[in-house]
Amino acid sequence: MGLKLFNDLADLQIPEVEALLTLARRLQANPEPRALAGKVLALLFLSPSLRTLSSFQAAMIRLGGGSFVISPDMSIHGLETRSGIVMDGMAAEHLREAIPVISSYGDALGIRAFANRVNLANDLADTEFLAMRDLVKVPLINMESAIQHPCQSLADWKTLDDLKVPKKGGKFVLSWSWHPKALPLAVPSATLHMAAMRGMDVTVVRPDGFELPPAIMHKARHAATLSGGTVRETNDRAEAYEGAHVIYAKEWSSTKFYGDRAADQKLREPLQDWLVDEPTFATAQPSARFMHCLPVRRGVAVTDRVLDGPRSVVIHEAQNRMWGQMAVVYQMIGPGV
Amino acid sequence: MGLKLFNDLADLQIPEVEALLTLARRLQANPEPRALAGKVLALLFLSPSLRTLSSFQAAMIRLGGGSFVISPDMSIHGLETRSGIVMDGMAAEHLREAIPVISSYGDALGIRAFANRVNLANDLADTEFLAMRDLVKVPLINMESAIQHPCQSLADWKTLDDLKVPKKGGKFVLSWSWHPKALPLAVPSATLHMAAMRGMDVTVVRPDGFELPPAIMHKARHAATLSGGTVRETNDRAEAYEGAHVIYAKEWSSTKFYGDRAADQKLREPLQDWLVDEPTFATAQPSARFMHCLPVRRGVAVTDRVLDGPRSVVIHEAQNRMWGQMAVVYQMIGPGV
Amino acid sequence: MGLKLFNDLADLQIPEVEALLTLARRLQANPEPRALAGKVLALLFLSPSLRTLSSFQAAMIRLGGGSFVISPDMSIHGLETRSGIVMDGMAAEHLREAIPVISSYGDALGIRAFANRVNLANDLADTEFLAMRDLVKVPLINMESAIQHPCQSLADWKTLDDLKVPKKGGKFVLSWSWHPKALPLAVPSATLHMAAMRGMDVTVVRPDGFELPPAIMHKARHAATLSGGTVRETNDRAEAYEGAHVIYAKEWSSTKFYGDRAADQKLREPLQDWLVDEPTFATAQPSARFMHCLPVRRGVAVTDRVLDGPRSVVIHEAQNRMWGQMAVVYQMIGPGV
Repeated sequence: MGLKLFNDLADLQIPEVEALLTLARRLQANPEPRALAGKVLALLFLSPSLRTLSSFQAAMIRLGGGSFVISPDMSIHGLETRSGIVMDGMAAEHLREAIPVISSYGDALGIRAFANRVNLANDLADTEFLAMRDLVKVPLINMESAIQHPCQSLADWKTLDDLKVPKKGGKFVLSWSWHPKALPLAVPSATLHMAAMRGMDVTVVRPDGFELPPAIMHKARHAATLSGGTVRETNDRAEAYEGAHVIYAKEWSSTKFYGDRAADQKLREPLQDWLVDEPTFATAQPSARFMHCLPVRRGVAVTDRVLDGPRSVVIHEAQNRMWGQMAVVYQMIGPGV
Repeated sequence: MGLKLFNDLADLQIPEVEALLTLARRLQANPEPRALAGKVLALLFLSPSLRTLSSFQAAMIRLGGGSFVISPDMSIHGLETRSGIVMDGMAAEHLREAIPVISSYGDALGIRAFANRVNLANDLADTEFLAMRDLVKVPLINMESAIQHPCQSLADWKTLDDLKVPKKGGKFVLSWSWHPKALPLAVPSATLHMAAMRGMDVTVVRPDGFELPPAIMHKARHAATLSGGTVRETNDRAEAYEGAHVIYAKEWSSTKFYGDRAADQKLREPLQDWLVDEPTFATAQPSARFMHCLPVRRGVAVTDRVLDGPRSVVIHEAQNRMWGQMAVVYQMIGPGV
Repeated sequence: MGLKLFNDLADLQIPEVEALLTLARRLQANPEPRALAGKVLALLFLSPSLRTLSSFQAAMIRLGGGSFVISPDMSIHGLETRSGIVMDGMAAEHLREAIPVISSYGDALGIRAFANRVNLANDLADTEFLAMRDLVKVPLINMESAIQHPCQSLADWKTLDDLKVPKKGGKFVLSWSWHPKALPLAVPSATLHMAAMRGMDVTVVRPDGFELPPAIMHKARHAATLSGGTVRETNDRAEAYEGAHVIYAKEWSSTKFYGDRAADQKLREPLQDWLVDEPTFATAQPSARFMHCLPVRRGVAVTDRVLDGPRSVVIHEAQNRMWGQMAVVYQMIGPGV
């Protein structure tokens, strides 16, 4: 059977996520350095990466297989992405060939392609990633698209479990952070959904103009209904952080002015105090955790003292990328599949 | 014994090529994920790559070994290629050291170095590649040089076999295609030779001024004599495509004005109708195939409808790069060698 | 137990170095392609590399494990190195996160970060590398820092042993060479120490203004005391090369004007005759060897005829990087550790 697509935790039932996490913990505790002998994971990075790039390569080695990486910054031929075009410019190869070719060398494929951040509806519909998906015949992993980042969510879920953060009654605050640039919605959307699906009481706290899109909120509320969690949104930080078990900071674009850089810039300019510092935790649980998917700008989204202090579990989250992804590829191309 | 050099199908007897293809099919059908355990393939890319870069890495993983890649676009020290020079400029390392060093870490080495396209005689003699060959003590694979691309030819031969395209009486048309730039002669030369050596009736169709060099044609005619095939060249497209089993499109430089970019440009400018479209196949065999080594410019060398339609076997060819190359490395450094 | 840090041969006792070399020779003679199955070496290159980049990847494959490479020239997020900074500029990620993250995916980590060559005291104290070391919880390999290059030294020691160059009474000349730029002190410092620790009679010959720092000389003299070797420094080439078993050429910065590019440039300008040529060996041992860590500029540090002649063992040295490093990772994360 095997997992064919790892794109969105919402595609899975809660027990299926839990099975992935159980498998992740098993592989962490008991290495299986022969499980994927001779198996190849193809990795296509159309956007920058550090954790994903490293952790997938490490994951495959730990299971006895291997991977190769293709990225447009390498000395390849220049990749065209537009449809129906006469290719008489710089690009010598179209994604319509590159993706089937690359995936023909792999037993599974991972693709990363960030949001264009031009048109919100397109990004919410994940148009670009879904068009690429249609070109792939092997199991496919979304390594972050316009609106999804399931590998991050799986790692974060495992981190919450590892740290015994409560599901039922656990208060998870997704807190907008300042950043000099308008970043994509993939991580906040995926994170909100993950926490809701895990059954937690989720608060999204963000300035006005940075509301998460209704479709994202609606989907998360549906997940909360099934899991016994709750979802709400506010612009009131003081109230949001009260009793929090987790403050998960994330930078994202204005949704009011999505794709309009100047208007987004103007709206975010006065919001530089939206960074997480030790006082942010004043009314939170005493042992409240600080989470972030990384990369994070020190002194911008969070202060050094929080990031270097005992609350921060960002390295733990990052390491869980590897264990979670090992479970994903194992379910896709491992023994018995 | 073992294969020491994979440079030119013409270096092999027909049964030796067939043995490679039999081995490729065996490895495709029955994985041997331990065959090259602990074995290293060193890969030096002095020219861009997507398929070769990916497929050799995947090939080594599938056989239980591994590879590493060196390319001048990486953060290395800058490579000097000229002989007898005082290196007081930018380059900090000479290929005369880099190649022996890199190959000393591998059980075999692959090198890619495209034609300079300055002097036809030098490119036909493959001067640069042969100079590098003299620095290598391990088995060596030509990953495309000025005039050779044996890995592509092996993959194409396998593709023709996979698709049961006739050898004796099979009509293979190598069709010049327009391209904004003057591309090397390696693929057309290797492809012509492959089809002739496979015993097919080969027609090279190209505009005047783009004749393949006499040495290349002569060599192919000799191969045809041994195999029972035929080789001819024409500028008459209508006639060339009649009864074709395969139309293999490829872009290449003017040979009349080789190395003279302006003259080549002037000659090619009016030839933009030399692209393959569905009507190109009007008088071909009903099931005639479209082949191309990739990368290909959509709307330039071939239309979308051909490339996306049932005639196109370009992804099949590309995937066969991996299976063919697995056979090559297996014969070089595999069990029993 | 296992080796936790490979930073400086001076951290090891002579028998510990010899044990590494014995292991290197054993792995060279008797491959162990399963020894590191499922084990991952993380490789962080903050400075350019060819030999180190290749040989560590090859080393891991030969032992059945694997590695991944991170380098700022890849499409990652831009790495900040400064402490206590508000990251509102280009860099999106700090080394304080990047290093723990990368090392969390590896069983061991290698880091390369060349000297800044601004402040001699900082570079001698290896401030930058030691700050990074504090972020790493897995065994760590110095792949060349401001003042260390233990992998090169281990390879050179093995090369001397392979070639049966005498320890006691063997005369080792470390000879400054001209170079258009001011290069770091890591290799000359490490090489001096290696030869002294091996028990050889070491002469450092360099123009005035290029003296190795007192701390480096003092440390080497201490090593010589323990090993039975000797260490001295001179500016007299004719006398230095007399009776030499080895002339090891290396380019380095002026220490008199360390960090002052203009003054260094002025001092080195007239020293272009400090290159090794065949006459350099006139009074050396008849079978005297030429060594260099590479990359080397032909016609600048050494003439073609020496480099291409029988005295040169530079490729042998480079290959020994791989065997030596296999021993290091084996002692860090191999069977029984």
